Amino acid sequence: MKILAVDLGGTHATCALVEGRRILARETIALPGSPLLATSLETIAASLDRVQAQNPANAIGFGFCGLVDSRSTRIASTNGKYTDAVDLDLSHWAVQRFGLPLRLENDARLALLGERFAGAAQGETDVVMFTLGTGIGGVAMIGGQLLRGKHDQAGVLGGHIPVNFAGRRCTCGAIGCAESEASGWSLPLIATEWPDYASSQLASRRLDFEKLFACATAGDSVSREIVDHCLRVWGAAAVAAIHSFDPELLVYGGGVMKSSDLILPFLQEYVDANAWTPWGKVRVRAAQLGNDAALFGVVPLFDQELPLVR
Amino acid sequence: MKILAVDLGGTHATCALVEGRRILARETIALPGSPLLATSLETIAASLDRVQAQNPANAIGFGFCGLVDSRSTRIASTNGKYTDAVDLDLSHWAVQRFGLPLRLENDARLALLGERFAGAAQGETDVVMFTLGTGIGGVAMIGGQLLRGKHDQAGVLGGHIPVNFAGRRCTCGAIGCAESEASGWSLPLIATEWPDYASSQLASRRLDFEKLFACATAGDSVSREIVDHCLRVWGAAAVAAIHSFDPELLVYGGGVMKSSDLILPFLQEYVDANAWTPWGKVRVRAAQLGNDAALFGVVPLFDQELPLVR
Repeated sequence: MKILAVDLGGTHATCALVEGRRILARETIALPGSPLLATSLETIAASLDRVQAQNPANAIGFGFCGLVDSRSTRIASTNGKYTDAVDLDLSHWAVQRFGLPLRLENDARLALLGERFAGAAQGETDVVMFTLGTGIGGVAMIGGQLLRGKHDQAGVLGGHIPVNFAGRRCTCGAIGCAESEASGWSLPLIATEWPDYASSQLASRRLDFEKLFACATAGDSVSREIVDHCLRVWGAAAVAAIHSFDPELLVYGGGVMKSSDLILPFLQEYVDANAWTPWGKVRVRAAQLGNDAALFGVVPLFDQELPLVR
Repeated sequence: MKILAVDLGGTHATCALVEGRRILARETIALPGSPLLATSLETIAASLDRVQAQNPANAIGFGFCGLVDSRSTRIASTNGKYTDAVDLDLSHWAVQRFGLPLRLENDARLALLGERFAGAAQGETDVVMFTLGTGIGGVAMIGGQLLRGKHDQAGVLGGHIPVNFAGRRCTCGAIGCAESEASGWSLPLIATEWPDYASSQLASRRLDFEKLFACATAGDSVSREIVDHCLRVWGAAAVAAIHSFDPELLVYGGGVMKSSDLILPFLQEYVDANAWTPWGKVRVRAAQLGNDAALFGVVPLFDQELPLVR
């Protein structure tokens, strides 16, 4: 079975043709820059035409960066990105434009499906995957199945579990989520409010995690304090996930994992010391597939027992 | 079917005979005061003999105040109470002493099963129940089933989700759990460290939530600040549970709910304002069965598809 994969980001999309554990064709395209998804659909469709030009596909797996109800193939909430997406019927679009069935899934869930199919979580049944990047994804699999819940929101908001009840307002509406306490978008807000920020090495140019970790390694004390802050936030989110979902493995992906040499040993030690797991120890491991995880995720997506339309 | 129910607490146990939505007989007994459960088992057995004297029972449902693997009928971790319990084979005891099958469950899970069977969660399928007392119980039901996970730890540690990553060490080993930030056992620790505690109305005698809420209502400013702190901790725990388990209803029980007039409206407003639920609003409701919830919980416990021995 050949499946067209769409991994939709805020400014770019990756379109690919996937068969088993092989990516037969792929391209990453810039999107029109519109806040509407409808405006980008034909750009995406043209890319899908190209990647399946040699090998006609049997289905489309669409990864979306927001809350998705995969059972009804509807986007439930976009948290500010592509606000028109909740009104789009992508199944209808796929049938009209390609004559193909479409399955829709949250992008972080697709990444976990992909890592389990072809990456760091192969052979595992009880896993939580965190994606540390501009935002924080946190997805739970129990007994080999993605946890879904009544409205398909269970087990998919690991970045939006409050770890600081007196903390910063998150884009999701809650207070002190892991994402609002230590993610790509919140890092500059955190840093500029930090004591002695103005005199630190961080103040000179645009701040991201690569710069933060570099300055910390170079000995900047404010950077070290903020790194410590972020690590403890991610550690608390890890314990929250373990105590909620009872996994045996935590997989970490996302752009921040360029500094995995520093992050993973801390998290393993933190989890060993803080999680209440009388059965044994939860393992902590880096993701293996990078941006390809969501592409590979479309293969197991079509193995799941979900009705295409509820 | 008549079921013997045991609801085991730290110093007392309630034993009852339950048939459907009726409690046919019951008694609450003091336990020997030993830190070992083995020492108390014959005291419990004698009580069970009495409650089933007129009506022989068909089975025993045993509620334990710790981590339980109900599939193997073993106690997994006791968090300091009854440390010998992890080595006890209660199924064997039930067969030897009574000739009856036994099912074992965490006491907070039994309370949720009971509230769903005969109390505040009747007709609901997706529910989280919090028990605010000496500790904090937090139990998740998804699609009408208790969430269990690989080691039967999923969905049962809602009081042990960190809501303050820089907070107080919890008895479970984690940092800043809801329980270590706002529960019966942590309240005196929190209060004595509060600024101006010594000059507040709280300083004069033993502190519990009843006294705290009374002093707050009487206008004591430190008490009001601590009440506000606790409410926000419980609010964060509520949002964590909603974002993790996707329920439509939160049920609140436990001794602290004597002040439900103050707590429930706050939590409903907090959840309305902070939880990310594009499908609608999560309802917040008081438990109805009080200490009987766990007793009624044994009835659905025997309807669950669990092997008596794995």
